[in-house]
Amino acid sequence: MSLSPTPLPPLTLVLGGARSGKSRHAESLIEATPGPWTYIATAEAFDAEMQARIATHRDRRSSAWHTVDAPLDLAPAIRAAPPGRAVLVDCLTLWLTNVLLADRDATAASVALVAACREAPGPLVLVGNEVGLGIVPDNALARRFRDAAGRLHQDLAAVADRVVFMVAGLPLQVK
Amino acid sequence: MSLSPTPLPPLTLVLGGARSGKSRHAESLIEATPGPWTYIATAEAFDAEMQARIATHRDRRSSAWHTVDAPLDLAPAIRAAPPGRAVLVDCLTLWLTNVLLADRDATAASVALVAACREAPGPLVLVGNEVGLGIVPDNALARRFRDAAGRLHQDLAAVADRVVFMVAGLPLQVK
Amino acid sequence: MSLSPTPLPPLTLVLGGARSGKSRHAESLIEATPGPWTYIATAEAFDAEMQARIATHRDRRSSAWHTVDAPLDLAPAIRAAPPGRAVLVDCLTLWLTNVLLADRDATAASVALVAACREAPGPLVLVGNEVGLGIVPDNALARRFRDAAGRLHQDLAAVADRVVFMVAGLPLQVK
Repeated sequence: MSLSPTPLPPLTLVLGGARSGKSRHAESLIEATPGPWTYIATAEAFDAEMQARIATHRDRRSSAWHTVDAPLDLAPAIRAAPPGRAVLVDCLTLWLTNVLLADRDATAASVALVAACREAPGPLVLVGNEVGLGIVPDNALARRFRDAAGRLHQDLAAVADRVVFMVAGLPLQVK
Repeated sequence: MSLSPTPLPPLTLVLGGARSGKSRHAESLIEATPGPWTYIATAEAFDAEMQARIATHRDRRSSAWHTVDAPLDLAPAIRAAPPGRAVLVDCLTLWLTNVLLADRDATAASVALVAACREAPGPLVLVGNEVGLGIVPDNALARRFRDAAGRLHQDLAAVADRVVFMVAGLPLQVK
Repeated sequence: MSLSPTPLPPLTLVLGGARSGKSRHAESLIEATPGPWTYIATAEAFDAEMQARIATHRDRRSSAWHTVDAPLDLAPAIRAAPPGRAVLVDCLTLWLTNVLLADRDATAASVALVAACREAPGPLVLVGNEVGLGIVPDNALARRFRDAAGRLHQDLAAVADRVVFMVAGLPLQVK
């Protein structure tokens, strides 16, 4: 998977479940293009478990990656990336969680994000967690999050050039 | 997605997670056929959250849709639809929830539903929520529901002419 | 689905949600090869619900199946199977649960399992539950399990000849 079969299109959406190999696949798509590359990280290290996850991901990446933290202001971070260079956003799900926890308007934030993705200065690969295929969650916040995530993925998939659904590390092309 | 690539076959099953665009895709398949169309709604508006969801779906549909409510007696509602006109059932998951909550026999109800689907008077599109791809639920009722939903989807997929799995609003054809 | 389109390759991975027809599909792949066949069962009957599930699976299988119980020592059971005969492991998910509950090292156990799968004495079909597509679970053990299962599936998919994702009883070929 280190070589993309075709040149990276303007907008790619990589969806999948937990530990389905989304980040690794997204990185491999970008690393087939000329570097350096921008990694926009949306994770906030609230606890030790999250710190360990972030460190694992960071250790895997080569020094050709330049990391930008954007837990909330994702749209401006995308617009500010170096022109003509590939950008990875990892991941939409944590960004949306941060937006909801900060009591920001998720719909307005999603609209602004979709606009920034369409006007990105270089090829953009977005990683998102598919969270809507289990039993309906008990608590209302989880349901609100699930709805917002599903709508965001639909809006991005509609304008994306390529959409893949990861199964056990293997990309299934949906668009 | 407003035009179906082929004429609508007798039985189509549209599966997917929450907010994956199932209803919208199913509606677009039917709206490519000559109307008027029948919308069989299985939702019961127990609370404000559900009322809002029902209203959103209803507002999206044009006046060429005739809505029938069938929270429990779904098989007779399918058989009673106008001959030769396309019918949408939205959704199997809420119907099965209603059957279990009403303490009816889910197996017998599923058998009756499959029979009605095979003898439907017009092209039929069924929408179902895939709920079996998360962690095993803690409570026994949720596990019973998950099992019943999985079996129902399998039984319907076996007799369906076309089965699609929705990912972020995009249909992935499985059959 | 009783006839496999091509001869059974050395290693097949069948993934899917609860009640998605994984076991039945895996059995049909193996029953298209000359018997007798080995069924390696990883389930432990802790309670009546699990006993009923095991009995249902067992009753469905013909007498050409020889059943071996391996709730924990799965790698040796695979290596000990009769040469040249097809083997079914049902399922990876229960085995991994048993490993974690027994406080064994899941990473080491997974490495040993992957090695045994690559050196299996006959065609091997592995069944695994996809559990990572719902909302992030509340409790840490469930998250640990979800991570371990996802990594194991990725490692096995990387060396498998064929990977299928089951949707409502229908196999979607991913590799």
